[in-house]
Amino acid sequence: MMDKIVALHADDMDVVVQPGVGWMDLNSQISSSGLFFPVDPGPSAMIGGMVGTSCSGTNAVRYGTMKDNVVNLTVVLADGSVMKTKGRPRKSSAGYNLTNLFIGSEGTLGIVTEITLKLAAVPPKTAVAVTTFPSIYDASKAAGEILKAGIQMGAMEIMDDVQMDVVNRAGGTGRTWEAVPTMFVKITGNDTQIKETTRLFREIAKQNKSGDLEFAGTLDEQAALWAARKQALWSMLSLREKAAEVWTTDVAVPMSRLPEIIEKSKQDVADLGLFASVLGHIGDGNFHACIMYDAQDASQVAKVSECSQRMVDNALEMEGTCTGEHGIGIGKKTHLIAEAGHVAIGVMQHVKHSLDPNWILNPGKVFDHPSETDPVGH
Amino acid sequence: MMDKIVALHADDMDVVVQPGVGWMDLNSQISSSGLFFPVDPGPSAMIGGMVGTSCSGTNAVRYGTMKDNVVNLTVVLADGSVMKTKGRPRKSSAGYNLTNLFIGSEGTLGIVTEITLKLAAVPPKTAVAVTTFPSIYDASKAAGEILKAGIQMGAMEIMDDVQMDVVNRAGGTGRTWEAVPTMFVKITGNDTQIKETTRLFREIAKQNKSGDLEFAGTLDEQAALWAARKQALWSMLSLREKAAEVWTTDVAVPMSRLPEIIEKSKQDVADLGLFASVLGHIGDGNFHACIMYDAQDASQVAKVSECSQRMVDNALEMEGTCTGEHGIGIGKKTHLIAEAGHVAIGVMQHVKHSLDPNWILNPGKVFDHPSETDPVGH
Repeated sequence: MMDKIVALHADDMDVVVQPGVGWMDLNSQISSSGLFFPVDPGPSAMIGGMVGTSCSGTNAVRYGTMKDNVVNLTVVLADGSVMKTKGRPRKSSAGYNLTNLFIGSEGTLGIVTEITLKLAAVPPKTAVAVTTFPSIYDASKAAGEILKAGIQMGAMEIMDDVQMDVVNRAGGTGRTWEAVPTMFVKITGNDTQIKETTRLFREIAKQNKSGDLEFAGTLDEQAALWAARKQALWSMLSLREKAAEVWTTDVAVPMSRLPEIIEKSKQDVADLGLFASVLGHIGDGNFHACIMYDAQDASQVAKVSECSQRMVDNALEMEGTCTGEHGIGIGKKTHLIAEAGHVAIGVMQHVKHSLDPNWILNPGKVFDHPSETDPVGH
Repeated sequence: MMDKIVALHADDMDVVVQPGVGWMDLNSQISSSGLFFPVDPGPSAMIGGMVGTSCSGTNAVRYGTMKDNVVNLTVVLADGSVMKTKGRPRKSSAGYNLTNLFIGSEGTLGIVTEITLKLAAVPPKTAVAVTTFPSIYDASKAAGEILKAGIQMGAMEIMDDVQMDVVNRAGGTGRTWEAVPTMFVKITGNDTQIKETTRLFREIAKQNKSGDLEFAGTLDEQAALWAARKQALWSMLSLREKAAEVWTTDVAVPMSRLPEIIEKSKQDVADLGLFASVLGHIGDGNFHACIMYDAQDASQVAKVSECSQRMVDNALEMEGTCTGEHGIGIGKKTHLIAEAGHVAIGVMQHVKHSLDPNWILNPGKVFDHPSETDPVGH
């Protein structure tokens, strides 16, 4: 199972865990320390997988992604030897940054057996609020101005009109939402700090045509409100009819280009006659599209694949990436070549080859062995 | 020179620069944007060198170190090919994290020709304050409690009794300080936020036996106050007598162990009859010792080297690192072996060899060619 918490060092604000620990389980087990691990992807994610894909979540705008929140890794290498990427200081300039070499390498460089994670202080209070905007453009402009003003939000998420409709149809949030672009935010601190951050946020949101800011009153309401965001994918899945599948994708662009790529993607979906919702980490320039399609209908499969391809092309044209937090796996290997270019792919292949000369670790993921594209071999 | 700002993308909160740009110069050139690059090492540091050593500075407790603040690098590899480590999105899970592989590699893997840096919002106001503590232990305990309470300080620095005396003797701050452990802090935000953070900080500091919190009244006073911290090394250098040198070193440990290692180091210095000051990034578990010695006196040279060695040994025993922000270079190669172990050093050598098979890039830095320790070769 490898699902143990090995050691909690509350005074150093770190915790040592095995890879099979779920992040939600970890946080409930250490809750009495007043600390938590702030990276919050899908509820079922485990730390080992989160290291593998360098994932993130709604808290990234405040706490960063996996690469910002891992202190060290213990790794078994291809030849069976075991190493630790570094000790437990938060800061180090000692040699190559092996920790971040393994994070996001999707199991292709070694097998992670133990992880030391940075912990953050649980904020005294967390307020959850929502507000609507006439367009994704307005919401995105507001988000940019908030970040540029240095207003520290706990989280800042967007769901489009379609996604809000999906949430309504899936039910379970105990209310009916207006089907318009809606921003979900967390504001953290003590009462004084929350009041001040709220004032600053509201001012900029209003200038960008937001509706009223509506706060969850109780902890239950808060959980229900945030659940609407965290369960967006499940809402979509619950609407599936027979043979329908949901294709989810994830691209990221420089912050200011987010509304443009979302609008383009929505137009594309409409032109192709597909049904898709958009939700995004608006403070990180990162969004997800959930496209529904009939897996038995070859023309729909072709359309959804074309649509997803164009989303990546648009992202790369904007100096973005084909994946902000999901990783490459098998499905995005050709996208990675388009994004990184042959020189950078060559560097990755060389690094892989130097640590795993027989390509026994998760072969075929992220990129192919050079012999498959280059008959001369490595 | 390679000292140009290539492109400022204010709406994306990033800037593209050449490696010869100084961080202070960069910040004065982009000041009208309301943004700044937050990593603040010594005043003369340039971005290229900062990338090479994965440096940091007094702002790290708030904004992180170089590895948290670089979006991408353009690198010339050993074979002359050129690549970009990634595009310009803030978040990415696309392939290996090449950006952080090159950061901190001290020029041994490639030559960085262009850097995209994350920018942060200039806070509306910055307050600078100082307070004294009866001991480093009390100051460190206060710092830990402040971090564990999630109170966000702009910076939190410590100077010991000796360093405060050095500042007095060097003059230039326009006042005489009490020669006791002194904490320098920055508190940022608008008036309301600064007031609240100050209240929270003061409460915990007082519980840990701090003196009064003294704020700089004017911008000039602020600059003078912070200069006492930033020019600590120069203060020490200005006191040198004939033939005297200053040996500076830098180790980092898990946060809670900082007072212990500082006390041990101070005792060691006293036992050896050397003169040394200590200053540290108390929120990061990272400190510097500046030891004065006579370079012409072989017994003093031996003593200072022994003292520095013991500081590293102590740090490693506490799961720390031989360098928190200065890097390995030539001087700490044996320390790196002790810290990382042979398996991790082997990984670094393999990565180096795979990207620079002839070892032409900054050879002999960070670690040696395996043939120098392993006659079988690579």
